[in-house]
Formats: sequence, C-alpha cells, structure tokens
Amino acid sequence: MSRVTKELSSYRSCNIRADWLEDDDSHSFIIDLPGITGKDVKLEIIDGVTLEISGQFPPETHCNLKWHVKERPTGAFRRTFLLPQNVLASKLRAFEVDGMLVVKIPKKKS
Amino acid sequence: MSRVTKELSSYRSCNIRADWLEDDDSHSFIIDLPGITGKDVKLEIIDGVTLEISGQFPPETHCNLKWHVKERPTGAFRRTFLLPQNVLASKLRAFEVDGMLVVKIPKKKS
Repeated sequence: MSRVTKELSSYRSCNIRADWLEDDDSHSFIIDLPGITGKDVKLEIIDGVTLEISGQFPPETHCNLKWHVKERPTGAFRRTFLLPQNVLASKLRAFEVDGMLVVKIPKKKS
Repeated sequence: MSRVTKELSSYRSCNIRADWLEDDDSHSFIIDLPGITGKDVKLEIIDGVTLEISGQFPPETHCNLKWHVKERPTGAFRRTFLLPQNVLASKLRAFEVDGMLVVKIPKKKS
C-alpha cells in the first residue's frame, strides 16, 4: 500500500479535512479546524517519520437547546501522515489562521 | 417533506457543514468556513423566509506543486435554510470567529 493510500484509508473516521502539498523547498499541511484554538490541538512528530495532529472539538455547553441541524464534528480527532525521507522534521513550523492549522516542514537540501 | 429534511437533502453537494440550534430567544446557525473571509461570503434573506449563505472558496494560486492529499473543498458553495415563522429576519446579526460564520436571528416575542 502506498503512503498516500495508507493515509487516505483512515479518512472516514476522523472528520477533519486536510491538504498536503509539496513544493521545491518544503511540505505543507493545511488542516481545517474551525472553532478550535491552539490549546485544543496537539502536534507531534513520532519516531521522526510520522506527523500526528490530534485534539478535541470543544464540547457543547449550551442548555435548553433544540437542534434543527447538527453536522459539525464533535469529540476527538486525529490525523497521521507518514513523512517522506526528504524532510527536516525538527524544523517544523506551525501557525493558525482563519480556522486552519498550517504546518510547514522544510526539505533537506540535496 | 419537512423543512429539516428538505434542507438536509441538499447537503451532499455543498461541502460545508452547519449546525442550526434554537433557544428561548433566537435561532443560531454556525457554519464551518475555514480559510474564508467576509468578502467571499454572501448572506441573504430571500422572500423573508429563506436564509441563504453562499460564496466561493479561494482558488489555489500556488504553482509547481505536487499534491499528496487534496480533501479541502474548492469552488462555489451554497446552503439554504427555510426559516420558521417565529423569527425576526430583519434583526439578523452575523460575525466570523476562528473559521466559523455565526448567524443569529431573534425570535418574535409571543
């Protein structure tokens, strides 16, 4: 099974959407996390080869509500991406903007 | 077909998730729009009875890219919600926070 296929196969259970793109200098991951702030997101490099993004959607705290539509995800989420060998995982940078988490990992210079 | 069923039946084609909840004073709509800012979203009350949220995800402008994963939506989006008779549509308020559009419409006082 290829790396990409292996990653995509777990998509249905996790409820968050991601893009992964590569340019000449780096790999970039853009993860849609609307309504989630940094303290609720954990970002890890596991064994130097796997990028894992996990966390928890905030619980619903309102009372006396009637729900007409409920589609937005709740509970825990997790995505893992098996990184290629050409990245410098220790140089990872991440920032949040407009409900997206953006993770950039530079490539090794060949 | 009930109002809620009528709304949900169009979900598969639109790519954006929403919650609609009602409390004693108002109806609230929370729409996940990560990466989209106000100028790309149009909010309308049609014929006084339908709330429509539409817009366009920003086009991908990067060149020389290799895509490993592409799940985040692109292109146009539109959601419509048939409002109940107990709302004051003219008093609608909307704001954006952390990649979500929040629309609040007060209920008529009985």
